[in-house]
This record gives sequence, structure tokens and C-alpha cells, in this order.
Amino acid sequence: MRGLATHPAARGLSDDCAVLEVGGETLILTHDMLVEGVHFLPGQDPADVAWKLVATNMSDLAAKGAEPVGVLLGYMLDGDDARFVEGLAAALAHYGAALLGGDTVAGSGPQVMGLTAIGRATCRPVPSRAGATPGDTVWITGPVGAAMIGLEALRAGSGDSLAYRRPAALLRQGQALAPHVSAMMDVSDGLLLDAHRMAEASAVTLALDSAAVPIACPESRRHDALRWGDDYQLLFIAPADVVLPVTAIRIGTVQPRGSHPLLLDGLPPAEGEALGFEHS
Amino acid sequence: MRGLATHPAARGLSDDCAVLEVGGETLILTHDMLVEGVHFLPGQDPADVAWKLVATNMSDLAAKGAEPVGVLLGYMLDGDDARFVEGLAAALAHYGAALLGGDTVAGSGPQVMGLTAIGRATCRPVPSRAGATPGDTVWITGPVGAAMIGLEALRAGSGDSLAYRRPAALLRQGQALAPHVSAMMDVSDGLLLDAHRMAEASAVTLALDSAAVPIACPESRRHDALRWGDDYQLLFIAPADVVLPVTAIRIGTVQPRGSHPLLLDGLPPAEGEALGFEHS
Repeated sequence: MRGLATHPAARGLSDDCAVLEVGGETLILTHDMLVEGVHFLPGQDPADVAWKLVATNMSDLAAKGAEPVGVLLGYMLDGDDARFVEGLAAALAHYGAALLGGDTVAGSGPQVMGLTAIGRATCRPVPSRAGATPGDTVWITGPVGAAMIGLEALRAGSGDSLAYRRPAALLRQGQALAPHVSAMMDVSDGLLLDAHRMAEASAVTLALDSAAVPIACPESRRHDALRWGDDYQLLFIAPADVVLPVTAIRIGTVQPRGSHPLLLDGLPPAEGEALGFEHS
Repeated sequence: MRGLATHPAARGLSDDCAVLEVGGETLILTHDMLVEGVHFLPGQDPADVAWKLVATNMSDLAAKGAEPVGVLLGYMLDGDDARFVEGLAAALAHYGAALLGGDTVAGSGPQVMGLTAIGRATCRPVPSRAGATPGDTVWITGPVGAAMIGLEALRAGSGDSLAYRRPAALLRQGQALAPHVSAMMDVSDGLLLDAHRMAEASAVTLALDSAAVPIACPESRRHDALRWGDDYQLLFIAPADVVLPVTAIRIGTVQPRGSHPLLLDGLPPAEGEALGFEHS
């Protein structure tokens, strides 16, 4: 994002969704890309890749409390396109999104694909990353670390890799939570990195209790699980007295902006420490 | 498109636009990709590549008589991203489209990028490819062949390559024509191939007069110019007594569907002859 995000023309180019008011409705638009060797393994089942492409975009809609309308696919043709389409059809049916259109291209390098998802807001104002207020509480909808274990199983060729291959976008939870949250986003690049981004967007400090974060891996891997991506839980902020409509786990509090946007067990992350998965 | 387009789930995946009714408004959505070495030359000025990416998508909107709203960019980071952003900013300003969001990814192979453009219909019903009716006339907004000459100039390193590098999307013409046409599309992959697609979509035969087609190249290259892409003229169908609001050239007539969807000077194209640029 360096060259792009710093240019005035590219101010809109964060990985957050676009919100578009159209004829009295509020549309949510998001675009996510997957690159072979970066976001999925060479040789991975194309049906799983298609599922992940859809789920990552649906997860963006979930964080906005949106319901899916449809998608546009940009797809570089590869060997097993029919298998890709099978997975695409299954994922779109699962999430109730229509294939509205798209483009296919020939290509010779690593496979690249992109999906634009369009959703309809079910709650206005649409939750953003910028609403966290000191005194609020920090929540997550479920455990992190499952995708990490899943990727390791896939690489090892044994064990349960489903969480990595077929992540679930929490559309129902996002829609239920939207009226109750002051900020919400999905955890795609690692809990600490995404919490850091939310704190920056809200100009606050998020103070997280690392032991409170639910993990789907051995306790010895807690450090990694907090920094690993691809779990697609929803991270959200709510007033301290909130009564939530869905299950979630309280993992911290919102404080006035201090010297660092993120505190983990009272301390800022070590200088230069990677907080998650940076795509660029 | 083979594996994709034949699958029921991929029925929507043509290179035509999606039309979406939202709260009393009609949105047009389109997604086009560019691949290095396929749609642009390795080493080409990134600002020109950005311009072309925007223009190809805007041209899709033009064919629907739409006015641009905004775009979402999917962009594989490359060496000279700042230069890309310069071209992107210039093109978006030129066409009046906002950068709504997007995604950037790392990648190691040939550069790949995609753009989703969102437009607002200015005329309903929105022109499609399917409305050509026997007795109608076939028109084009201007000459073909300019991009072919431009690409040759760019490859040769001398001569005017602007038409290839910075194609113009005919938004104003598309909006003016929309209320008058029975079908419309942009000529992106070659006049004959796109006319063939329109004939198929409309279940008619388009009979073209090859000598009537305006060309922007030597007469000796007329055969190639009719089959070359990237010119982004608008190809449209109108009733025989139409009075057009913009300049256009009549190049044929619509006939009941005969044995072939396309006739060139009364004859179907030779068996197996390439009609244009197939992306896959």
C-alpha cells in the first residue's frame, strides 16, 4: 500500500469497505484479491480457493452488518477451472450471493483472482472502525488460531485443515451485532494487527488481555495465534453495559489514546515486532 | 471462459455489465482485468496502464449510457506504483469517478490488476446487447484500427502510440445515444467479434458493409482493423429512421437470424477465421 496509500488519489484505498448511498439504500462494496503462493498454496484444491475468495469478501460485509447482494469475479484461467467454479457455486449458494458478472483473463504466472462483493446495509449508521470510545469494551466473536493450525495440517498433509481452507464469514453475527457496536471489523490479518488498525482509526488505545482471547490451538501457540490471520472472527467495540445478541468474548477495554495505540497486558508491543500478516 | 461460462453458476459471467436495481436507482457494475504481457506490454509506462484500466471499465459504462460513480481497484504491487497512481488519479479525474476502495497484494509473476467500476444509469431501460431487431440499422461512433497502429508504434519505439496507450471511453456519446438505441456495446475485442456477440445475444444476423466501416489506418490494413481490439468505439443498433444526437457512421443492417450471426459484404466469415481478440 505504500506508494498507493500515501498518494492523495489513493486515500480511499484501504482494505476497509466502501459505503455508497444509492436511492435511499446503503450499499457496502469490498474487493479482495488472492494470489497463488501468497494467499493460497500452489496445488491447493481450486474449490477451496474459490470458497476462500468468497468468504474473505463476505467477511468484510459481515463486519458492516450487511447482507450479500452479489459479486463480480476477476479470474485468471488456470488448469482446473471447472473445479474452481464448483467451489464458487457452493460458496455463493451458502452465503446467498449472486454472480453478477466479471472478467476472465489468460495468464502465465502465479494465479491471481479478485472478487468484488456488494452488500446491502441492514443497520445504519454502518459500523466502521472509527467509533471506539474510551470506556467501551473490546470483544471477539470466537477463537483465533484455527486457520494457523489448519494451514500447518494442510502443509503437513495430515490433520484437519478445514478452518484454513473453508473459513466461515460471520454474516448472521455481524448483522445481529451491528446495532449494538460502536466499531467493528473482521480479523483477517491477525488480531493484534487488526486491533492496532482499529485503534488508529478510532484515535484511541485498545488495551487487550491476552489470556482472555479465546484460541483454537494449544496454549503454547497463544503468542502466534494472536498474530496469525485468516480466522475471520469479528472484532468489535461496545459500550461497557452492552447486552449482546450473540455469543462473544470480552478481551479488553478502550482507553484514551496513550503513547501507543495497542497495549497487550498493559504493555505496548515490542518495537519492530510483527503484529500480523502485512500483505505488502 | 470455457470452464466457467458453461457452468450454471457462471451464467452471469460474461464480459457484459451487471445491472442492479437499488432503491429506485439502476446501478451498472463491471469488472475488467489487465495482465502484463497480455493486455499491456512489459515495461510500459504504469501511468498509461492505469489509464487503460480505467478507460476499459468506463467504456463498459458508456455502452450502458451510465455515468460513473466510482471504482474499486485490485492491484498487484510492482516497481513503480507511484507512477501507476499518477495515471490512476488522472484517469479518474478525467472521467469523474471516485476511488472507493480496493485491495493491494504482493506478487511475483506478471503484474495483474482489476478494476470494478460502478455507474448510475441515465436511461432506462438500460441498453443491452440483446435488443437488435430485423430492419434496424448498425452504427459505430468512429474509426477502428487506431489502437492497432498505436501498438505497432509503441513496439517500434517511434510514431504516435497514444490511441493504444490512452484509449478514450465515450461516456458522453453513450449517454446521448442510450435513449435512441435498440442495442449497444463497446468494441473492445474487435469489431467483427463484438458484432458477432451482439448478433448472438439478439438472435439476429448483423450484415456489415466492410467498406463503410471507418478506419484510422491505411486502406491496406482494413482487414486487420476490423478484427483488432482496444479502440473502444460504441457499436449500436437503431431503428432505420433514427435521428442521432451524436456523430456516428452506419455500417450495416439487422436481418432475421440466418445461417450465420454475421455477414460481411453478404458472406459469413471463413470457417475458423479469428474475428477478434479472444481473451482465453
